[in-house]
Amino acid sequence: MELELLNLFLVLVVAWIGGSVATRVGYPSILGELIAGIIFGPALLQVLAPTETTTVLAEIGVLLMMLYIGMEIDFRELGKASWAGLLAAIGGFIVPFALGYYAVLGFGGSNLGALFVAIAVGVTSLATKSRILVDLKLLNTRIAHVLMAGALISDTLALIIFAGIISFTDAGSIEFLEILVVTGKAVLFFAVTGLLGIYVLPYLGKQLEKAGFTNRTLFFTIMLIIAIGFAELAELAGLHSILGAFIAGLFLRESIFNRKLSKELNKVFYDISIGFLAPIFFVTAGYHVTFDVFQNNLTLLIVILIVAVVGKIFGTALFYLPSGNGWREGITVGTGMNGRGAVEIVIAGIGLSLGFIDNEIFSILVFMAIFTTATVPVFLTWTTTWLRKRGELVLSSSEKKGILFLGAGPLSLYIAKKLNNKAPLSLIDSNIDNCVRANNLGLKCIQGNALKEETLMEAGGNEAGTFVSLTNNSEINVLAAQLASETMGIPNIYVSLTPSTEGANVELLDPIGASTIFAKKTDPYKWDYKLENKAFEEILTEITEHISSRDFLKQISQKEGDILPIFYENGEGELNIYHYGIELEPGYKVHYLK
Amino acid sequence: MELELLNLFLVLVVAWIGGSVATRVGYPSILGELIAGIIFGPALLQVLAPTETTTVLAEIGVLLMMLYIGMEIDFRELGKASWAGLLAAIGGFIVPFALGYYAVLGFGGSNLGALFVAIAVGVTSLATKSRILVDLKLLNTRIAHVLMAGALISDTLALIIFAGIISFTDAGSIEFLEILVVTGKAVLFFAVTGLLGIYVLPYLGKQLEKAGFTNRTLFFTIMLIIAIGFAELAELAGLHSILGAFIAGLFLRESIFNRKLSKELNKVFYDISIGFLAPIFFVTAGYHVTFDVFQNNLTLLIVILIVAVVGKIFGTALFYLPSGNGWREGITVGTGMNGRGAVEIVIAGIGLSLGFIDNEIFSILVFMAIFTTATVPVFLTWTTTWLRKRGELVLSSSEKKGILFLGAGPLSLYIAKKLNNKAPLSLIDSNIDNCVRANNLGLKCIQGNALKEETLMEAGGNEAGTFVSLTNNSEINVLAAQLASETMGIPNIYVSLTPSTEGANVELLDPIGASTIFAKKTDPYKWDYKLENKAFEEILTEITEHISSRDFLKQISQKEGDILPIFYENGEGELNIYHYGIELEPGYKVHYLK
Repeated sequence: MELELLNLFLVLVVAWIGGSVATRVGYPSILGELIAGIIFGPALLQVLAPTETTTVLAEIGVLLMMLYIGMEIDFRELGKASWAGLLAAIGGFIVPFALGYYAVLGFGGSNLGALFVAIAVGVTSLATKSRILVDLKLLNTRIAHVLMAGALISDTLALIIFAGIISFTDAGSIEFLEILVVTGKAVLFFAVTGLLGIYVLPYLGKQLEKAGFTNRTLFFTIMLIIAIGFAELAELAGLHSILGAFIAGLFLRESIFNRKLSKELNKVFYDISIGFLAPIFFVTAGYHVTFDVFQNNLTLLIVILIVAVVGKIFGTALFYLPSGNGWREGITVGTGMNGRGAVEIVIAGIGLSLGFIDNEIFSILVFMAIFTTATVPVFLTWTTTWLRKRGELVLSSSEKKGILFLGAGPLSLYIAKKLNNKAPLSLIDSNIDNCVRANNLGLKCIQGNALKEETLMEAGGNEAGTFVSLTNNSEINVLAAQLASETMGIPNIYVSLTPSTEGANVELLDPIGASTIFAKKTDPYKWDYKLENKAFEEILTEITEHISSRDFLKQISQKEGDILPIFYENGEGELNIYHYGIELEPGYKVHYLK
Repeated sequence: MELELLNLFLVLVVAWIGGSVATRVGYPSILGELIAGIIFGPALLQVLAPTETTTVLAEIGVLLMMLYIGMEIDFRELGKASWAGLLAAIGGFIVPFALGYYAVLGFGGSNLGALFVAIAVGVTSLATKSRILVDLKLLNTRIAHVLMAGALISDTLALIIFAGIISFTDAGSIEFLEILVVTGKAVLFFAVTGLLGIYVLPYLGKQLEKAGFTNRTLFFTIMLIIAIGFAELAELAGLHSILGAFIAGLFLRESIFNRKLSKELNKVFYDISIGFLAPIFFVTAGYHVTFDVFQNNLTLLIVILIVAVVGKIFGTALFYLPSGNGWREGITVGTGMNGRGAVEIVIAGIGLSLGFIDNEIFSILVFMAIFTTATVPVFLTWTTTWLRKRGELVLSSSEKKGILFLGAGPLSLYIAKKLNNKAPLSLIDSNIDNCVRANNLGLKCIQGNALKEETLMEAGGNEAGTFVSLTNNSEINVLAAQLASETMGIPNIYVSLTPSTEGANVELLDPIGASTIFAKKTDPYKWDYKLENKAFEEILTEITEHISSRDFLKQISQKEGDILPIFYENGEGELNIYHYGIELEPGYKVHYLK
């Protein structure tokens, strides 16, 4: 029972500090973890060294991380991924892949080593994306959607090619029969896991649900067993276990088990992999880095860095041309996809442990990951500023842009009418008269109880990106918002709260990340009445200085008395629902009722 | 990167199957896991064998399980643990400890081996308790509380004595200076961890809260780091890492971080330890079992089984005498504490790996754990039936028996008045008049918003075992119930829902394990009115056949029209609130309003 506890403790601590520092300055935590491993590991300070404990935990960590990455990929989203995303993914993969491959061969590397480097150069980081897109306020642009689809497709592509290489290296020779067997085994693997994932797992899920099992830990254990079972199947088929775990993740999405439970367990797998085991992998990956490469192989290092950056950016831009979105947007997408991250390090690590690449090539790949990831925020800021200045930053025609209103009273109808041509929109009301009225205005309205999952589903909650709770009952608003967040995963939730000191209050919104619509407690009745009797004016005002939506409301209320801010228009003229927590910038416009 | 994946997969599968079968037939899952390890391991089928992967994961699993066990122990509960619980714990530990020690010495065992066996024989399983108490309907009896307190104290005692032994074995010699150093280090460990736990961690928690950190994974990582840090501190002090993890768990309870987050993370640690890693430990513990012991050491095996069972039961009963609760109750408590479980196997495993006991003694201890745990439901059924028949099954004057009512309308007041002398009781109402009225009836009433955590705290939500949501607003009832469950951890929650097809519905109660008060949707207004105008009768009826509370209500409503069942009295004459999901037995009585 001699665990190398002190070592494990230190690894977790440096991983945590490294990760925190990295995210604090806007980089993915993996960057900090890698660097921590390099600094405290054998390469520099030599405080840390590999131990059996960290080796085992790191390997389990990689499996669970691949499982989690798989879980995060939404088949439907991938299916809907635009033509543009596919082009970007292929171009951004193939060009650096080819360049990387020939570069290594040119420097006298082995065929297999070259293939590993090529994959590593080709992949795209998933981890970098969201945070940077938020920071640069790109989430609602076409670029953001292309980037996400591109990264997903590129990672999936990389893993499949990686699997192919792994399965052929096992074979050794390249005789025809051998190739047939190897290919057959891989095909069998995909067929078996596909059948299991598409038919057996959902069946199992239904049986468990029927039998009334709701114990979270039970489902957690079952998911673990499935993941490790799939990983083992991949090994048996001559592929690599990470591919099995990844595919298990693809299937273990919400559909299999109870929706709420799945969401909870998704978080648990995130905690375990990203909060515990995967950082151990990245720190220990840093151990294998050697600085000798700067003396022995500096040219190759520089060549690979150039190939990675130039190949990725221009490869993406080149293949992106047929999308018709212009070469400038292609370049911008390329800079956004330039990061390498978790998957690259995992593949490089496997290459190292299988002996296909040596420590120096591995070090080059790690430095490449760090360097390219570091470029993303810098380059992407440049390119998007450039596009923005030219007025070419196109807003997305995104998938999950549906808006769901709870309550079809006059105020809801007023707001919904204005947004109706911008997004698929539907309303829910328990009162049939309200629904009929909405229908007469050309709006879709479901009559039903919004506190039931099936009503939300019927109203298209699955496809909605925004949920607006606007009945006169604050508590119904809050409960419906909880359901919309927890079972439908709707990201933007705006809730109306009445100005009573009793009952539902803002504290209840925090846990689901919802915010107060209109940036204040409001009595919808009052405005319903005014709207019904046409006793209101619509006013449009422009923002002149940076101000929060809450402060702006206060400011304007002091001047004008009782008003209700409904929308704000950002710089691109996009109409958005006014709510608590927006930072309004000069040039934005606010629509309010008086 | 060659994980022994197939082996890990099989270990998880047999652990899961073993655990499921065990819990299905009413035993703790650890029993099934141990037996699975014995059957599939080297002892019998030889399908499984130790691997590096399972060894490391098992060891991390033990640490996380000890952390979790620590987290589950409530200082306040321990502090309040009755005199009786303390007596039971001491008697149930010391007597089998002494008998076990001399038994091993008598068979020619070493001093250290004897000490390890003695501790193993002394401990009491925590895992067995709750499930069996529920099955035997003992949760509300004094025995249940003595058992829980007893098991907690006994485990804590065992771990401290274990730590003492470990620290002295390290010293080797028993010179005075040596003893001083060893004791000093142990004292230092408790002082340092105590200071960290009592001052530093809460301070850290407050700082993080102030800085606005709410990222769950961040807190998860911090808790892991603290646990492993404490484990390492224990090692440095010459104690064992499990003690450090256990003590970290004691401090990492709700108080440190945000209440809701802590509850969530507590579940995550449960998932990881009990749903993933600890089962690996118990299966692999089964590997070390050898059946040779039946040939070579059968007498010792039998002696230890006898010592364990007889020592535990009669030791407990003997020391229990001064409690004044009678020797029969002492025997009953003894049979309930007779199980050994996780902690015993952990200690035995450490003894084996440090070489203090050999495989045969280890096997004896495993068989002892299996045997004694198996006796608990059997013996406890006998003894409690015996007590029940003699009318000596005393109901508990438990700690968390407070009742909290939301809504102080006439119906609430009617119910509260009847329960007022049985339990500390308070009401919450936003209406000051209702509160004044409650006060005039001698009831405690807090005027405030029940959807705020501070109101629930003020009303004693922390101490409440029952929460009754009985306002006329179903949605407020549900939201308050969520808060009561999630932030206060109140176990029994009864919610009133109005008979509307809109708004809050039963589906919303499932996730928090609440049930519908009165076993049907009710309009409190109507009954408030009847109660106000004294337009009702109270009727008491006796149950003649086993029936669910829902069916009984239907049955009686068919005969008598619109009635409202308020209480049921169980066989012991205890008055309980009528709600959905009770199984009524012949002899029970139901109070209803008409």
